[in-house]
Order: sequence, then structure tokens, then C-alpha cells
Amino acid sequence: MGEEKMTPKPEAVEMPGFVMSAEEAERAAAAAGVDTVEDLLPLLIPSAMRRARPPISRFPVGAVGLGESGRVYAGVNLEFRGLPLSQSVHAEQFLIANAAAAGETALRSIAVSHMPCGHCRQFLQEIRGAAGILILVTSDAVDGCEPEWRTVASLLLRPFGPHDLLPKDAPLVLEPHDNPIGDPVEAVVANGFAAGGLEARLREAAEAAARAAHAPYSGCPSGFAVADGEGRVHAGGCLESAAYNPTLGPVQTAIIAMVAAGGGPAGDVVAAALVEKDGAVVAQEAMARIFLAAVAPQASLHVYKYRSSDV
Amino acid sequence: MGEEKMTPKPEAVEMPGFVMSAEEAERAAAAAGVDTVEDLLPLLIPSAMRRARPPISRFPVGAVGLGESGRVYAGVNLEFRGLPLSQSVHAEQFLIANAAAAGETALRSIAVSHMPCGHCRQFLQEIRGAAGILILVTSDAVDGCEPEWRTVASLLLRPFGPHDLLPKDAPLVLEPHDNPIGDPVEAVVANGFAAGGLEARLREAAEAAARAAHAPYSGCPSGFAVADGEGRVHAGGCLESAAYNPTLGPVQTAIIAMVAAGGGPAGDVVAAALVEKDGAVVAQEAMARIFLAAVAPQASLHVYKYRSSDV
Ligand SMILES: [Zn+2]
Ligand SMILES: [Zn+2]
Repeated sequence: MGEEKMTPKPEAVEMPGFVMSAEEAERAAAAAGVDTVEDLLPLLIPSAMRRARPPISRFPVGAVGLGESGRVYAGVNLEFRGLPLSQSVHAEQFLIANAAAAGETALRSIAVSHMPCGHCRQFLQEIRGAAGILILVTSDAVDGCEPEWRTVASLLLRPFGPHDLLPKDAPLVLEPHDNPIGDPVEAVVANGFAAGGLEARLREAAEAAARAAHAPYSGCPSGFAVADGEGRVHAGGCLESAAYNPTLGPVQTAIIAMVAAGGGPAGDVVAAALVEKDGAVVAQEAMARIFLAAVAPQASLHVYKYRSSDV
Repeated sequence: MGEEKMTPKPEAVEMPGFVMSAEEAERAAAAAGVDTVEDLLPLLIPSAMRRARPPISRFPVGAVGLGESGRVYAGVNLEFRGLPLSQSVHAEQFLIANAAAAGETALRSIAVSHMPCGHCRQFLQEIRGAAGILILVTSDAVDGCEPEWRTVASLLLRPFGPHDLLPKDAPLVLEPHDNPIGDPVEAVVANGFAAGGLEARLREAAEAAARAAHAPYSGCPSGFAVADGEGRVHAGGCLESAAYNPTLGPVQTAIIAMVAAGGGPAGDVVAAALVEKDGAVVAQEAMARIFLAAVAPQASLHVYKYRSSDV
């Protein structure tokens, strides 16, 4: 037996939360005895997979990605009982929403426990430079072969994507957005919510999420905010896909934010707020209501419609 | 100029409906002066595209495919105002649902107006032998180059699909299904519906669609039936995807059946019936209600729950 074969295989590393700073990632790589943070990513996969919530498929998927900033992001799959399968969140989508929420502008490489599906390969196209992102599938490690890094371009040849529909310089999913939200249809300030109270915090968070949403295809940015049992508020905006169906709705991105913050399952939501355009062509209110009815029936929901001034 | 270049380019051919018999297809190919029905497919694309209904994107997509039987099927994209983008139907999905409804067991080749998105490349995996299906993208014809046939395998390398989750011999999307529907939770016969009346016809159609649905991942087959303004009934069952989100819901496949039968847009639905499992982990009722509320608010809906005997 050659000496090469005696090198101990690096062991799995526990990822403390859903985001690691660049320094934490460097330290964890050194402690694990690997040369680079890229080499650390697959070691974090078992830890991510344990936090997946797939009550329908019972098929946990984990993804861990390295951003341009050096930070490391995790993603897991989420499924919701009592709703259509279209409401599910894939690990790669969770990772991208997580990175977007942290202000990351590009992803360099992603390790994932299972071969990405076509829906995820499509969602990845929303990132500028998607073609060059490197993917490693840890379950490729069979018969003693090491899994290999391959480009997203090789996994989705001749893609359909944002470049087919948008001007070249339109901001993509990991780039800053400041959508005009216009005026509220009703004077919500007059609703009697105490400043700093839960309703006001939910509305502000949902509005900020709508401003930051990626909705270039529908022109209908929307934001959702949820409060967990401890009164913490988590929010997300819709992240649209050029192919429409792989879009993450605002309810999903808010739940992603809650899970990424260490929150409980979606059933823990006690109150929620939705901000969307009045008369939106792509509307979220009805979907948000049936989501909460199925998953967190005790939760209250306030809906705030805005009148877009520029459309 | 060589003689080759003088050969007139075959002109677009009108496709009368959404299905052509093998004989009609052969005759149309001969009349168009092309050698094979495969060569006819791209000529039918402009005719299919004119029947697309994309009120949100205003981006019409057409697909035309040749089945093992020699029949030719069309598909178009459908979008629905007032709902999330996840409710959209892509042309390739329409084509597959259309072929499934006609009892087609395999597809040989598909011409499509635009490069298929990742969501569709994933949905195609539900067909046995998907890797070998040939795809031609008519918009590839640029700078005088002819578009080329390429395999689905080349468009989605190393796919995730049914083989990752199901036994090898489980029926796939174009293969016959006879899902056990069990007993109705309530004695619907006692509801006083006249035999042969519209409610009874809708229920029977939705039940047959649930029996024929492709629901191996959730174990929750469901069927939906709609009546148009002329009292004609159209039905479809859910067609699930191994990747969950690209799944076509039963509402979508029923609307596909209506459009394929030459029916009006989804707004023409006057009455509907849903058949699904009581307490389904993947439930359609709430989604069906918000779909109708947004698209055909005048339509009535009856929901029939069944108690599966074998689960
Ligand atoms: Zn996926
Ligand atoms: Zn598509």
C-alpha cells in the first residue's frame, strides 16, 4: 500500500449555523487539515443535511457554498405538508436566498449532497456568472473515486436564463435591488399599531424585503415577514426565475430566513405580514393565506397593498 | 450560387388542433415536401405558438412532439394572472400532459420554439427513455445555420430523476396508472346529483383522472375536472416530478385538456370537481380554490375526498 492511500480521509466538520464568516471558515479549514475553504465545503455537508426538513420525501439534502466575500452559506431542503409540491424549497435555493439576504454578490463554489435537479440548475442561472460556479456532489464518491468539481455550465448546456429576457445590466439575484414600493393603498399608520410593536416591526421588515426582492419578470416585488414564538422577526422577498416556475415566493424566503436564524419549523410562526402591489399580475396574498392555513393556522396575517407609482 | 442554396425553405404548416393522427402527420409531411414527420415538427411551431396564452410574460412558446405511435402532439405555455408564477405551465409540460392524456407511451422527438429551461429538462425525466428523446430548437436558426437535433441527455447531463427514488419497474408519466382511489369519505351518491347531470359527469371525470394520475412520490393521486360554457367536461390528474416543484397539478392538467380540446381560456370554466385523498400530505383543495377565485371566480367547485384503503 502506497503512502498516499494511508492519508486519513478528512472527517465531517460541524457547521455552527447557516453562515460562517471568512475568518471562521479559514480557521475551520485549517483545523480540519484541508488546504482551502473549497475543500472544507464537502466536509460541512453532513452537518447541513441534519437540519433539512423534508417531512414528505424524507430525503434530506444539504448544500454549502462559498461566496466572493469568503463567507460560507448553508442550505437545506424544506417541504410543507398539506400543500402542493410546488411550495417546496430545494437546498440550493435555500443557499442562494441565504446568501442574498447576507448581501453576498457572487458565489464561487457549492458542495451539495445530491446531484442538483433541473429546477435548481435553472434557479442558479439568476446569479451573474452562474456558468462558472463550481459544483461538487458528495454522493458522487463511490467505489473509492473522489467526487469532482464541475461547472454549472456543464450541468445546464445552452441554458435559458435572464440574458434571454432582461437588459444586460439589470440587477440579478445576488445584486442590490431597491424596488420602488410607492404609496400604501390604505393609511396603515392610522391602524393604531404602536411604533416598535410586533405589527409595526413585521410591516417594516416585509416592506424592506419587498424593496430588496428580485422581481424583474413580473414587475411585482413582494415581501413577507414572520414572527416566531420568541417575537423575533424574519423576512424575505420573492426571488424570481427567468423560467417563472422555479421562483421562490416571499413566504418561502421568509421561512428560509427563520430557519437560517436557528428558528423552529414553519409551524412556529405566530404572526405574519405581506407587502405587495395592489392588483398585482403576480399576486401572493391568496398563496400566503393557504400556506399559513396549512402550516401555521394559529398565525395572524396582515396584508399591506401598495400602489406602484411608476407602473 | 450553388443549387443547394436555391432549394426553397419549407414553409410553416398549420396544425389543425393539438393532436394529429399518424396518417394526418404523414400526409402533412408529404404536402409540405419534407421527407419525414420529424422534419414536419419545426414547421408546425409557428402554428402552435399562436395558441400560447402568456398574459404575464407575453412570451409565447410552442412545442410539437412525435410519439411512438406516430401521432403528433402540440404544447403551448399558459400563464394565469393573479397567482404566483409557480402556477404557470410550460409548452413542453403541456405537450407531455397532452400525450399522456392520449395514451401515448413514449416520445421520440420534440421541436420547440425556444431553448427548454431547466424546469422542463427536469420534467422530461419522468418519461422512460428521456435521455434519448431528440430536441430541436427552432430559434437556433441564426446566421443561416440550421438548428440541430440534440438529445435530452446532452441538455441535462447527470440528471436527477425517477431512477433515484422509484423501483425500476414503477410506471412513469406516459405509462398506464390505475391508482386505488378507495372509498369516498361521504356518500356522494346520496347528494342528489342526477345521473348524467353535470355534477355527476365532473365527479366521474375527476375520479378517472385521479386513477390515471402520476403520483409515485407523494402517494396522493388527485384529479380535477372542469366544465366549459358549452357543458363540455375536461379533466386531468397530477403529474408529479421526482424533483417535486416541476410537478403539474391537477388543475393545470385539466386546463391543458380544455385548451387542447379547443376550449377557451381558463376563465371560461363554469364548474369544477376535485377528487383527492382525505388528509393528503400533498393536498390540492386550497390551491384549486385560489386558482378558481383568481381565474374563474364564477365557477362552482365540488370536492370529493376519498379514503385510501391501502395506505
Ligand atoms: Zn433541486
Ligand atoms: Zn420550460
